[in-house]
Parts: sequence; C-alpha cells; structure tokens
Amino acid sequence: MPEYILPVTRLIECFRRLPGVGSKSAARMAFGVLEMPEEEAEEFCRAIRSAKHDVRRCSVCCDLSDSEKCGICSDPGRDGSVICVVEDSRAVTALERAHEYNGTYHVLGGVISPMNGITPDRLNVKELVARLNGDVKEVIIATNPNIEGETTAVYLSKLIRPLGVKVTRLAYGVPVGADLEFADSETLARALEGRREF
Amino acid sequence: MPEYILPVTRLIECFRRLPGVGSKSAARMAFGVLEMPEEEAEEFCRAIRSAKHDVRRCSVCCDLSDSEKCGICSDPGRDGSVICVVEDSRAVTALERAHEYNGTYHVLGGVISPMNGITPDRLNVKELVARLNGDVKEVIIATNPNIEGETTAVYLSKLIRPLGVKVTRLAYGVPVGADLEFADSETLARALEGRREF
Repeated sequence: MPEYILPVTRLIECFRRLPGVGSKSAARMAFGVLEMPEEEAEEFCRAIRSAKHDVRRCSVCCDLSDSEKCGICSDPGRDGSVICVVEDSRAVTALERAHEYNGTYHVLGGVISPMNGITPDRLNVKELVARLNGDVKEVIIATNPNIEGETTAVYLSKLIRPLGVKVTRLAYGVPVGADLEFADSETLARALEGRREF
Repeated sequence: MPEYILPVTRLIECFRRLPGVGSKSAARMAFGVLEMPEEEAEEFCRAIRSAKHDVRRCSVCCDLSDSEKCGICSDPGRDGSVICVVEDSRAVTALERAHEYNGTYHVLGGVISPMNGITPDRLNVKELVARLNGDVKEVIIATNPNIEGETTAVYLSKLIRPLGVKVTRLAYGVPVGADLEFADSETLARALEGRREF
C-alpha cells in the first residue's frame, strides 16, 4: 500500500518537481490544496495555465512579457543607450527593486555552462548583438558573481568590445550591511582591489 | 509597475496561499512552472483537480480515501477492536510508517481549539462515538503532544470511558536517537514519570 492515496501521491509528485521542494514540503503543500476551497483550487489551475500560455519573451530584451514588448522596453522614459545584461527575469526584478538604474535590460536566459551543454548559441546572445546599433553606448554585464557568470561575462565582453561599445561589469565588494568578519576572502580581495577614494 | 508581469504575479500569489510558503519560495516555484514543459504543467493542473474531486472521507474512519471505505478500514487483516484516534491523515501515515500498529484509525480532522472556534462538534467526534459498539475494546488517543492535542485527549477520554471502552494515550518520553542534553525538561519529566522496568 502506498503512503498516501493515489490522487494525493500524484499531487505531491507534481510539487516535488518544483525547484527547491523536498518531499516533506511537497506533502504539506498537497494537503494545503486538499484543504483549500474549491474556487481557490480552480484559480490555482487557471494561474498555472495562464503562466504557460500568456507569458512570452519580449521581442527586444527577451525578458518575460505579457505583450510583444515588455513594460521596460516600451517605456519611453528609459534610456535605450544603456543595456544591462542579466541571466534571468529574477535578476531584472532584483535590479529594478534597487531603483538606481534607468536603462534597459537584456535577458540571456542562462549562462554559458559547457558542463550542462549550454553554449552561447543556446542563450539570447545574437538578439543582444542585434541590438548593438549605433545608439547603444554601454553594455553593463550583470551576470551572477560565480564561475559560470564570470565566464559568460568574459565571453560577452570579448564579443562586444570590438563593436565599439563600452562594456562594464557590476562592482564586486562587501555587501552593504554585512559584517567583514563573515565576508569570504575572495570578496574582500575584490573589495580592496576596487576601493574608491572618499 | 508591479514586480512581475500579471500572470506570474497571480501564480506567485497562488503558491503563497499554501502552508509554509513565503514570497521567495513562491516566486521560485512560479518560475519553476514557467520553465517546465507544457505537458508537466497540464499534469499539475490535472493533479490539483483530481485531489479536489477524487478525494473524499472514508465513511468509517473519516481518513482521506479515493473510495467509500479507505484501504485500512476495508482490510480484513486489520484489528477492528482497536481504534487509534489522530488529528489528520498525516498522523496516520506517520504511524503506518512505524509498522507497529495493526488496528484501525479515526481521523478527527483537527483538535479542539476554542481560540480558533474549533469546538468538538466541528470535529469527527460523533462518527467516533458511533463506532464504539460492543466490538471495540480500546481507543488509543494519538493527538499531537501539545496543549490543544492534550485538551482534545482529555475531552475524548472523559467522553469514551463511561461507554465502557479502555482509553489509552501514546507514551511520552525521550525520542529514540535523541540526546538527553537537548530534551526539554517537560519531556524529561514525563520520561521519568513513565519509566519502565528492564
């Protein structure tokens, strides 16, 4: 006899497929569905379907969008001469939350990772190069600060610099509000290297 | 402008309604849905609907079931003269995993909690009493070892004992494999009180 009855087991398995979900939290969520009102469960189904059918890629920056051009690319107040290159939509949201940047974005859809078979042609790189007409003055590379993000950054800078566009990288350093004691030595080394005059 | 586009925000909100899900994990799971193949997303919807439509309560023990009587109640090998009373289906699964018990269960569907407006008439108590015909010899109360579980246990024992049925409670004590150093004093006091001769 299985641990739970079939309809519950199947729902637990669906939750388990989601990133970062173990078997205990999958079971907890499946029981949450069992306990929710019928209408909420229907809403959940509609939301899953809508996320699959109504979400596409912006034709300019490849970010998630519910129309042909995303909100940022179609906003005339944003500075189209600067493009910030990120790995995914979540990075766009994180940067927007900082309220510091008024340029546009380009979503790569991942990072170069030969181990996982992800080569530059599987990322939105040619869409980025296509945007580098005379109007773009600077490309800020904001891939994640890890080995794959760094490899991708180096690859892109080598590709873009010859096109006469300035290429920059997000600053490395100690996170604001953190304690030096807990910063790793690589981060501290980069923070020293990148020190600025008061 | 909201943080994410509407279809994604709606899906994140659906995940957030599930127990134990915060906004970060809800967003991670919503992006997981965006990245899963169409077919898996459809399967997810079907699993949610099936959990709502195909799961009902066993007519005997009130546990979750996909038929009129659950697997345990319809198993002639189980000892119907003992009923183990638990709060919910997850407790049944936990006890079954111990492979120690061969009686039947009764699922209360919660515990008495006046603060949350849960009085005995909102639990499956009358269904339990209806089962206490001459065949039942013992009722083991296995509500959770906390204040509400304890209150419910006391209420049930007062209700059932006058019917001439033996009422027992799961043993309190130190968990197997745990370290005495980390056991709370209430647990240690109960473990001393319930000590047994070698």
